[in-house]
Amino acid sequence: MAVTGLSVNEERRVGAVLTVDLQAVVSNYFVLRRAAGLAACAAVVKADGYGLGALAVARKLYAAGCRQFFVATATEALMLRPVVPSMGRIYVLSAPVAAIDLLEAHRIVPVVNSVGDMETILDYAHRICRVIPVALQVDTGMSRLGVSTAELARIRALLSRGGVALDLIISHLANAADPQDHVNVSQLHAFQNATSQLPDARRSLAASSGIFLGSSFAFDLVRPGAALYGINPAPWMKAAPVSDVVSLRTQVLQIRTVRAGTGVGYGPQYLTRRDLKLATVALGYADGLLRSGRGRLFLWHGRQRLSVLGAVSMDCVTVDVTDVQDGSLKAGSWLDVIGPHQGVDALASALGTIGYEVLVRLGQRFQRRYLNPECGMEPATSPVAESSQVPQLM
Amino acid sequence: MAVTGLSVNEERRVGAVLTVDLQAVVSNYFVLRRAAGLAACAAVVKADGYGLGALAVARKLYAAGCRQFFVATATEALMLRPVVPSMGRIYVLSAPVAAIDLLEAHRIVPVVNSVGDMETILDYAHRICRVIPVALQVDTGMSRLGVSTAELARIRALLSRGGVALDLIISHLANAADPQDHVNVSQLHAFQNATSQLPDARRSLAASSGIFLGSSFAFDLVRPGAALYGINPAPWMKAAPVSDVVSLRTQVLQIRTVRAGTGVGYGPQYLTRRDLKLATVALGYADGLLRSGRGRLFLWHGRQRLSVLGAVSMDCVTVDVTDVQDGSLKAGSWLDVIGPHQGVDALASALGTIGYEVLVRLGQRFQRRYLNPECGMEPATSPVAESSQVPQLM
Repeated sequence: MAVTGLSVNEERRVGAVLTVDLQAVVSNYFVLRRAAGLAACAAVVKADGYGLGALAVARKLYAAGCRQFFVATATEALMLRPVVPSMGRIYVLSAPVAAIDLLEAHRIVPVVNSVGDMETILDYAHRICRVIPVALQVDTGMSRLGVSTAELARIRALLSRGGVALDLIISHLANAADPQDHVNVSQLHAFQNATSQLPDARRSLAASSGIFLGSSFAFDLVRPGAALYGINPAPWMKAAPVSDVVSLRTQVLQIRTVRAGTGVGYGPQYLTRRDLKLATVALGYADGLLRSGRGRLFLWHGRQRLSVLGAVSMDCVTVDVTDVQDGSLKAGSWLDVIGPHQGVDALASALGTIGYEVLVRLGQRFQRRYLNPECGMEPATSPVAESSQVPQLM
Repeated sequence: MAVTGLSVNEERRVGAVLTVDLQAVVSNYFVLRRAAGLAACAAVVKADGYGLGALAVARKLYAAGCRQFFVATATEALMLRPVVPSMGRIYVLSAPVAAIDLLEAHRIVPVVNSVGDMETILDYAHRICRVIPVALQVDTGMSRLGVSTAELARIRALLSRGGVALDLIISHLANAADPQDHVNVSQLHAFQNATSQLPDARRSLAASSGIFLGSSFAFDLVRPGAALYGINPAPWMKAAPVSDVVSLRTQVLQIRTVRAGTGVGYGPQYLTRRDLKLATVALGYADGLLRSGRGRLFLWHGRQRLSVLGAVSMDCVTVDVTDVQDGSLKAGSWLDVIGPHQGVDALASALGTIGYEVLVRLGQRFQRRYLNPECGMEPATSPVAESSQVPQLM
């Protein structure tokens, strides 16, 4: 067993290894559930579980008591269905409702975003003589998805026709990571106002960051995604409330020494200012290391920070290893890209983006390794299984 | 059959459709092969064929006469092997040579990048008493992969021991898209000088852009990747020598009207300056639309250019459709992301990067649709099958 946790036989075939600690996902889930107080806690596993594997994550979280899952597309929902037992509920945030028959057949709950969507589903419900459970999204200030407050009267009229059961009302916060932004309170009031005009149903406003805005934002259900995967939902807190989930290591392909004035990488080339020892490592923009990181990127050798020099190539980058102690690094050695000294958020910052974009871009080319994939019963000391809080679908 | 080419039944399940015209890949291959004169023409299909599907591309190009393929990693090579018949050769650019037994067993040719690599392979060859064909990379000015010119004497000595057959000598140009950059000629001379110190073998220097630097860069084999997929290899030419391969369309999820002063998307929010009609469409950074495009992105509705407003979300963006003629756009309509009015290179420019990074980042979440996937015999008028130019491996 080598440092990557792969067998030596596996390790020699791969250039980089992404490790996902599923027990850390569960720990984060418990942290978020506690922070949400009396509200239930769903898991957002869209975009293949933020790039980490929706099926592995959902299976593990279901075993830990999570019963509600959110995805973005109908295809994602259909792929997830086999690993979420029938007690578990899958919501799809932006399903084209033209696929309502498919969703209904697989007990997937569409989030209705418009009056037109609601009419389509009602027509279908009346045609098949069955009541269809739906969630409703209300736009409270993002102008992105959801019915506007001006349309609530029409939605109410449609709901009074029967045929759909309003299971959940949701909205989404535009800037929840910044508690100083007035838009949070304005959205909170808009959501309270909107739900007061609608039939009684469970309500959900907060995603990862919203959970930390205070109990008034929690309502009946919170929907964390990013924070489950170790992205800090509350950058304003002294210490991140969640733990790291991911580590990414990459292999040194070769080491060379070059003279001062040597060009490195694609043009416009980086020119070395002194004699250097360079390592070429197997990680490039095809693996999720954005080209925008040029000039700001670091990899780590234990506690030693190494600068990436010049442009990021598709399959590799070149790193300055001049100051690494002789002999401690050779072809086949491993460097940390995401690890103890550089978390997802720190890497994102070097790349000029947010942890969300880094996670979803982690390449398919890595060897992915899951820690703690087994799905035992949750420990007796963990919070009560969430299923007891979820009303049954019809 | 709808505008996307999908059946209505497929279309309603998906948010975005990526169309890859495999016949256009073949046309580009023929263009590049002609431009390369007497040199043979390989195909680089690393990073899953620049995100478009290495297996589909390689199968199609093999049928069109291509016999040499390059990938980046051992895993990519092993995945490609089943679709490249034994007459075809697969080179792996940065294989950890620790996997030489695997490579040898599958007749995959490693590109040797260092003296250490060469020693490992020689040792293995002597152990199994078999001659192993290898390619050798020489670094001529990128300081990335390959033996340095100072190491050529040691390489020559190793080769004289027998056990490996030098099939090909390669190097890679740092800035071939800019014919004014002196580094091109300097690398050309370094390559000529290096190969003159090595045993006779086929030589290859040019990738996509290098093909257009003149016949002295072509040597025995050219290795285009990007240009096969429609990225312009010669931005300095009046018209791109290659044709578009990819189109990307995305579906409108919903349309709304908002007042002046309304916030759009994630914070810091875009604030509308007048009353607008907005469309939310199913494409976000999880699908490859980089967040760095904020403020510079456009989608197209036929010939009409539409501005993306505010931040790119993970699963969607919001587009200003105020000036679109009433009734011509509704939920379910399709907009062009990559199409007749915005090619891969133009989109890349809006995203602040190069076409290469756009292609490899196109999400796995799209419905992928291949045009012309069938692999018939190449037409009688096409250039002579390249296989006649390739010496057999032992």
